[in-house]
Amino acid sequence: MTSAQARPSNLHRVVIVGAGFGGLQATHRLKGAPVSITLVDRRNHHLFQPLLYQVATASLATSEIAWPIRYLLRDRPEVTTLFANVSGVDAANKRVLLDDGDSLPYDTLVLATGARHAYFGHDEWEPFAPGLKTLEDATTLRRRILVAFERAERETDPERRAALLTFVIIGAGPTGVELAGTIAELARDTLRPDFRNIDTHAARVVLIEAGQRVLAGFPDDLSAYAQRSLESLGVEVMLGQAVTECSVDGVAYGGNRLAAKTLIWAAGVRASSAAQWLGAPADRAFRLQVEPDLTVPGHPDIFAIGDTVTINGPDGKPVPGIAPAAKQQGVYVADTIKARLRGEKLSPFRYQHAGSLAQIGKRKAVIDFGRFKLRGTLAWWIWGIAHIYFLIGLRNRLSVAISWLWIHARDQRAARLITQGSSKVGR
Amino acid sequence: MTSAQARPSNLHRVVIVGAGFGGLQATHRLKGAPVSITLVDRRNHHLFQPLLYQVATASLATSEIAWPIRYLLRDRPEVTTLFANVSGVDAANKRVLLDDGDSLPYDTLVLATGARHAYFGHDEWEPFAPGLKTLEDATTLRRRILVAFERAERETDPERRAALLTFVIIGAGPTGVELAGTIAELARDTLRPDFRNIDTHAARVVLIEAGQRVLAGFPDDLSAYAQRSLESLGVEVMLGQAVTECSVDGVAYGGNRLAAKTLIWAAGVRASSAAQWLGAPADRAFRLQVEPDLTVPGHPDIFAIGDTVTINGPDGKPVPGIAPAAKQQGVYVADTIKARLRGEKLSPFRYQHAGSLAQIGKRKAVIDFGRFKLRGTLAWWIWGIAHIYFLIGLRNRLSVAISWLWIHARDQRAARLITQGSSKVGR
Repeated sequence: MTSAQARPSNLHRVVIVGAGFGGLQATHRLKGAPVSITLVDRRNHHLFQPLLYQVATASLATSEIAWPIRYLLRDRPEVTTLFANVSGVDAANKRVLLDDGDSLPYDTLVLATGARHAYFGHDEWEPFAPGLKTLEDATTLRRRILVAFERAERETDPERRAALLTFVIIGAGPTGVELAGTIAELARDTLRPDFRNIDTHAARVVLIEAGQRVLAGFPDDLSAYAQRSLESLGVEVMLGQAVTECSVDGVAYGGNRLAAKTLIWAAGVRASSAAQWLGAPADRAFRLQVEPDLTVPGHPDIFAIGDTVTINGPDGKPVPGIAPAAKQQGVYVADTIKARLRGEKLSPFRYQHAGSLAQIGKRKAVIDFGRFKLRGTLAWWIWGIAHIYFLIGLRNRLSVAISWLWIHARDQRAARLITQGSSKVGR
Repeated sequence: MTSAQARPSNLHRVVIVGAGFGGLQATHRLKGAPVSITLVDRRNHHLFQPLLYQVATASLATSEIAWPIRYLLRDRPEVTTLFANVSGVDAANKRVLLDDGDSLPYDTLVLATGARHAYFGHDEWEPFAPGLKTLEDATTLRRRILVAFERAERETDPERRAALLTFVIIGAGPTGVELAGTIAELARDTLRPDFRNIDTHAARVVLIEAGQRVLAGFPDDLSAYAQRSLESLGVEVMLGQAVTECSVDGVAYGGNRLAAKTLIWAAGVRASSAAQWLGAPADRAFRLQVEPDLTVPGHPDIFAIGDTVTINGPDGKPVPGIAPAAKQQGVYVADTIKARLRGEKLSPFRYQHAGSLAQIGKRKAVIDFGRFKLRGTLAWWIWGIAHIYFLIGLRNRLSVAISWLWIHARDQRAARLITQGSSKVGR
């Protein structure tokens, strides 16, 4: 018997799977509604994914961008937080199945289960080119990047040393661009005074993109600015190059081979298994194709939101997989649940694009607010302030502000810790 | 060929193994001396061990109490930091052996290799009752403690739930006392509003000690105060009880069995393998018995300091295994090396005990400065200020001060993150 079953049964039971931006926003928006809520996540923390690359590059500590889910909902007695792994949905009996054999009954189900990185049929590349979706991904990448410099410091063979000092990022969307820019700054500014045998300034940071420009979601001129900014940081930008192999020795693309010991995958995502759980229609990235009211076709009591769905915006283009879109969907679903309980009906979900932001490096960012575009120092300040604003709680805002202040003023990154198997340096 | 061999050979070569308090202090103190220094550590970071229990109890983030060793020595071009694992010492040929086959030549060697927790011949207890010496130990303990509450929240069997909510700390030295007090506060204050099915206030925290009092290194009245303070926090203090078994089900002591899913070992340490490397005389805890000038008997060019040695203070009692003792020994060794290079000789090492501090909980601490003793709120403030003072750098001081402010004002602990295998909750 699970805790959710212990709730009074006269209330409408909402189960929300996933405490990312979408699931958490839906939970918040349901405050005051006559429902009991069970929020299930296989992590105990909500993660501010837009800044995850800063953990991977030693700029921020894990606890600066993550909050215990329970803590965020401590003042909501009608919400039960469940730390558990969902393995499926029994839609006929209206139950969510957990991998330990338990199940949770629901009247309305909200699937906000997100996405993982995808290797387009080449899952064998993952050990060589890990992606960045969880805190563990970030601390693993941080360890790999820092250990590469440590090994290069001790390596006397010039070829092997060059491979250790070559960092390849695959995919030039926002995450790829932000990683490339930050690793370049780490090598050029932060680490340089610390090493004796290597010049970290000589590290190569290579950004490989299959498309024709970086930040393809942004207007042409901002893409061009982003590319120039990356190149001014020393990043080598390779456009129109599809990666054909990732291995322990490096990467192959367009007939070239590049010896590199650190590869990072930022080239694509695939949705969670939600579509499989329901046998529902999905696109190539396994994203559920939902109705205009965000319900799953044939399942009016099951909503799906965020990175795990695909739906078009009012401009006919797909809604982007970003935090504001997931949050808007969370709000819409909560409002729809409340309306239904009142016997009302809402008009279809309508995505409103507020804007896109990406940081390239210190005092270098691009902002596309549709009507007006911005780049450079002012854009960078707006980027920073916006991200601190969207963090939860004064404490984390203060903590991140101090961390950024230190990076800005001193080029120092506090979280340069090699943990988890640190003593094995290998050769 | 290693980096250390690339240094000019006309300088006296000092190799320091271990960048804890002793090794780092020796390195600092050698500034300006006509020596080249190689500082080897199997971690990339110096750790402020006195606050490690606060990482284990989610009060502080890992990066708040650890610094990259390279960064601390970035302004010292004569110091080479090596991230490597030492496997032995070839004293005849004056070389330090690394586990990857390399070796480092030395003229003077300083062994500051520290200690690990010891199970007094019961190493099989380690998986059930882990200790606390490294950052990984701390995040592992943090995960165990937080997962125990999560599992209890979902457990309906009263016996299993009680076992999940029973936390046993073995050993009532400063680490054991600080862990017991902080876990009690975590359960009573921090976690209570977050759970729905369990009353975290009902969690049992049991401190088992083989000796007759807690904090045996402190005067009787401070021990008594510490015990009363722990008991006022709800900690059950069991004195004169030797643990006879640790298992997945709990702990056995003095004929009793206590069902508990979380055991923590704080009962003893054993020195590193330094004595074995040299075949040198050691005590039962493998601590090297050193000469009055901190050299290893028969090896005037090898010093050993910190937790890896045993030596008596001017009062005839063993020098305690605390940070100030290791630092004083680091200073003494550096001064001796400098004196020898000038053809001089120093008088034997003389330990000066500055005092002992331990925190029990919020506004509860004990201080023994020998001449005067202190307990309660004022002691707690001095404890806090002293620890912030001994942290390195303004940034970490600020960051820890903010974290403590939040714990103090809001009972909130920011680092309540379950990472590393978090999705497997198990049963």
